[in-house]
Amino acid sequence: MAKRKIDVCLTPDLLHLYEFKDRIVVVVDILRATSCMTTAFAHGVKEIIPVAELEECRKLKEQGFIAAAERNGSKVEGFELDNSPFSYMNPKLKGKSIAVTTTNGTLAISKSKESVAVVIGSFLNISALANFLKSQPQNVLILCAGWKGKFNLEDSLFAGALTEALKDDFDSECDSPLAAQYLYNYVKTDIVNFLQKSSHVKRLKRLGIEKDIEFCLTSDQYEVIPFLKGDKLIKMESNFTYNQVGA
Amino acid sequence: MAKRKIDVCLTPDLLHLYEFKDRIVVVVDILRATSCMTTAFAHGVKEIIPVAELEECRKLKEQGFIAAAERNGSKVEGFELDNSPFSYMNPKLKGKSIAVTTTNGTLAISKSKESVAVVIGSFLNISALANFLKSQPQNVLILCAGWKGKFNLEDSLFAGALTEALKDDFDSECDSPLAAQYLYNYVKTDIVNFLQKSSHVKRLKRLGIEKDIEFCLTSDQYEVIPFLKGDKLIKMESNFTYNQVGA
Repeated sequence: MAKRKIDVCLTPDLLHLYEFKDRIVVVVDILRATSCMTTAFAHGVKEIIPVAELEECRKLKEQGFIAAAERNGSKVEGFELDNSPFSYMNPKLKGKSIAVTTTNGTLAISKSKESVAVVIGSFLNISALANFLKSQPQNVLILCAGWKGKFNLEDSLFAGALTEALKDDFDSECDSPLAAQYLYNYVKTDIVNFLQKSSHVKRLKRLGIEKDIEFCLTSDQYEVIPFLKGDKLIKMESNFTYNQVGA
Repeated sequence: MAKRKIDVCLTPDLLHLYEFKDRIVVVVDILRATSCMTTAFAHGVKEIIPVAELEECRKLKEQGFIAAAERNGSKVEGFELDNSPFSYMNPKLKGKSIAVTTTNGTLAISKSKESVAVVIGSFLNISALANFLKSQPQNVLILCAGWKGKFNLEDSLFAGALTEALKDDFDSECDSPLAAQYLYNYVKTDIVNFLQKSSHVKRLKRLGIEKDIEFCLTSDQYEVIPFLKGDKLIKMESNFTYNQVGA
């Protein structure tokens, strides 16, 4: 296969500058939305409906969905689930449909629906995801959820890790994959300590969730790849091919 | 003096997310607008009027200004000056007024006029600039001109170099100064080679301006600090204090 292109959109506020057609978009919100989604499917959740607005999520709850809502790092009152990956390891969620809204992650998914295919990335499933992308003929855009429109370190580091994993098959289209890749290679032996300085980790530590952070930065815990089918995220089956994505 | 805050806006397309009030904005377009401006004042140019639109620049030319216009790395036909720092070393420009428009740099200046003060940064005057900022009580926002709204490596590296130079007096407000600082510290011993891979350097090399690139990445050639007074950039006099900036 010819070399494909990889680009990184550092925040959803720069989405207007990027090409979506003919592209697989990898949505990333390491702390913690996409790490939770990966964990949920690995533990048997049937489907996840990501919605951008809190009100939409509340309506789905009224329709019988299990609902998860987080704003600024904390669970919103009146919803069952928070934004910790450990909450999604609960056997009671097996086979269930969940509606999710988070500060940054679900908004990024909503915005990237124009693309041909949307998949969910996290350190937890990075190798499975890299192998899938290598097997597909399409270019890739990594969309970092960031923090309220701004660049953040943890999503950019994941973008760098994925760019590094794909370097033999994909060329960087612009400077952001290169910068992310350099950053990742600089700190890869000690990401957890490196991220202690990041603004979001400081914010989350005030909420007492060090265990979440450490888990979300652990590579290759799961083989699942969640992807968007219509308005729902479901688990990709093995032997899945590109043409089915987004179908 | 209490520690102040430093933030980095990676591209003008993220300006809406940043605070401008009570802030000195450092506008950076290393290749090549702000490097040219620094060089121009160091060689005796009296004033520079940065304009965002080509048409505005053309009108100033008709009013007798020496006019410089660049788009996509090349001089626009009908204008006297291009965007090479070496063009601004010409003794004939001493004492002259110049109108300048470039792809990214002047647009960044226009957008940052809401701030209290706008200064021009480049590797060429980085230590003089750092000393000035240390002496002022205000927070700092480094505004990278980027490339057509996107992140670029050379401006971010400068932002990292300035953040590093200011680290004893300023705390990073967000993740972007941290990331820029890490990148800079990673490559500081060999910035020119490192940037060979960047998209803009590749673009400029096709235009045959390696000499410009090398010069623009050289630290501390000049002591001048251009700053915006009304609509014009002029050279800051020594013993300048913050209250005068933007006055």
